[in-house]
Amino acid sequence: MFVAKVTGSVVATQKVDSMVGHKLLIVEPYRIDPSDRGRLVTTGRTFVAVDTLGCGQGEYVLIVQGSSARLTPETKTLPIDAVIIGIVDTVNVDNAKVFDRQNS
Amino acid sequence: MFVAKVTGSVVATQKVDSMVGHKLLIVEPYRIDPSDRGRLVTTGRTFVAVDTLGCGQGEYVLIVQGSSARLTPETKTLPIDAVIIGIVDTVNVDNAKVFDRQNS
Amino acid sequence: MFVAKVTGSVVATQKVDSMVGHKLLIVEPYRIDPSDRGRLVTTGRTFVAVDTLGCGQGEYVLIVQGSSARLTPETKTLPIDAVIIGIVDTVNVDNAKVFDRQNS
Amino acid sequence: MFVAKVTGSVVATQKVDSMVGHKLLIVEPYRIDPSDRGRLVTTGRTFVAVDTLGCGQGEYVLIVQGSSARLTPETKTLPIDAVIIGIVDTVNVDNAKVFDRQNS
Amino acid sequence: MFVAKVTGSVVATQKVDSMVGHKLLIVEPYRIDPSDRGRLVTTGRTFVAVDTLGCGQGEYVLIVQGSSARLTPETKTLPIDAVIIGIVDTVNVDNAKVFDRQNS
Repeated sequence: MFVAKVTGSVVATQKVDSMVGHKLLIVEPYRIDPSDRGRLVTTGRTFVAVDTLGCGQGEYVLIVQGSSARLTPETKTLPIDAVIIGIVDTVNVDNAKVFDRQNS
Repeated sequence: MFVAKVTGSVVATQKVDSMVGHKLLIVEPYRIDPSDRGRLVTTGRTFVAVDTLGCGQGEYVLIVQGSSARLTPETKTLPIDAVIIGIVDTVNVDNAKVFDRQNS
Repeated sequence: MFVAKVTGSVVATQKVDSMVGHKLLIVEPYRIDPSDRGRLVTTGRTFVAVDTLGCGQGEYVLIVQGSSARLTPETKTLPIDAVIIGIVDTVNVDNAKVFDRQNS
Repeated sequence: MFVAKVTGSVVATQKVDSMVGHKLLIVEPYRIDPSDRGRLVTTGRTFVAVDTLGCGQGEYVLIVQGSSARLTPETKTLPIDAVIIGIVDTVNVDNAKVFDRQNS
Repeated sequence: MFVAKVTGSVVATQKVDSMVGHKLLIVEPYRIDPSDRGRLVTTGRTFVAVDTLGCGQGEYVLIVQGSSARLTPETKTLPIDAVIIGIVDTVNVDNAKVFDRQNS
């Protein structure tokens, strides 16, 4: 899994039938800032993930990829390879808080 | 999943029997422009995906990879690892429209 | 899937029993030349794939990766993650032929 | 699999039900130092993995990815793609010890 | 699959029960030297793979990744994503021998 920031959304009217009604979010994987290790920075990559938790724009989330994206009740039979499994409250690295939802 | 642009097609006459009759498209993954975040730019990578939606050249699509590519009615038993699951209408990032099918 | 060029082969006498008798080819993934988009160029990566189609050295092929590599009749129970599913005749990009088997 | 260092943790209160009660750790993949091959260095990447072994901060662990992350008794039905399967005692490369838990 | 060189080993005493008794090797993926294409060179990456063939340090092996790593008799139920499926005797590229076990 990896931590990502929700930065947008995708609309696709013409799609595989089973995908109708599922919210598709733009997520950008984040990693520990290699220079000071004191915050999270973007990896510059862009993915699309299904949201079943009602995530808002700007939130940090936990993404699972691959066949395990089908291991939630809402996504069991969907042709998807990425789903949000949690909304991140805090990330601690080297015993310091590098992300806190309350201050973001 | 990721957003990609359909830029071409592949023809292969000699192939695994189950693949006969399936359209193979060249797709290039796109990501948010890291400089201005105001549009989508190519990642420079090239993949091949099965199309079951009748996508046209130049369209932006949603691609699913891995075993989940077999979770659509038409691809259940195919030896494929990438399929188009939607045609993208709009992509919104940072509350701005970075792609709109109607203007592309 | 991706387009790759067959550039060699691997011989391994000591191997998992089920792999005996399966041809192993060296394949190099190709992508659209980012400078002129008029031909395919190597990505510089090297993989090994099982061949069930009788591919020759120098041919361009279509490779499937992951669990779907086991979705062909000959590879159902093999411990493999890459197989050739087609021999490429032509690749078209931006409405121009960037590869033609007859001229290669 | 790969060797990674446990450098932090993630807290997510709102999450998929089945994930409640599972410890989520920040892990950074390590590789052999390409310059002197005498130690392990970070790859600069950041992942999140489930811990079922009670790993401590700073420990080096073995991570498995993909569907196999569901092949441990505690993770069978979880929507996860990375789990810690061992705590690393020693890593030997080129017949020299490049990591020893007792001296770290 | 890919060709890799066995350069070391990992010892982990505390681990998932099913992993007890399985040999864990450090393997480094190799690729065709992009400058002269006459030999194999390291990619600089480091993985850990299960060995069921009794491979020695310095040997070149064939690695399978993902769920297919569980398709050998010894690894069926293991939480692993990489296994050695063969010991490489020769690698031929562009009709020249770029690796020969007998001369290495």
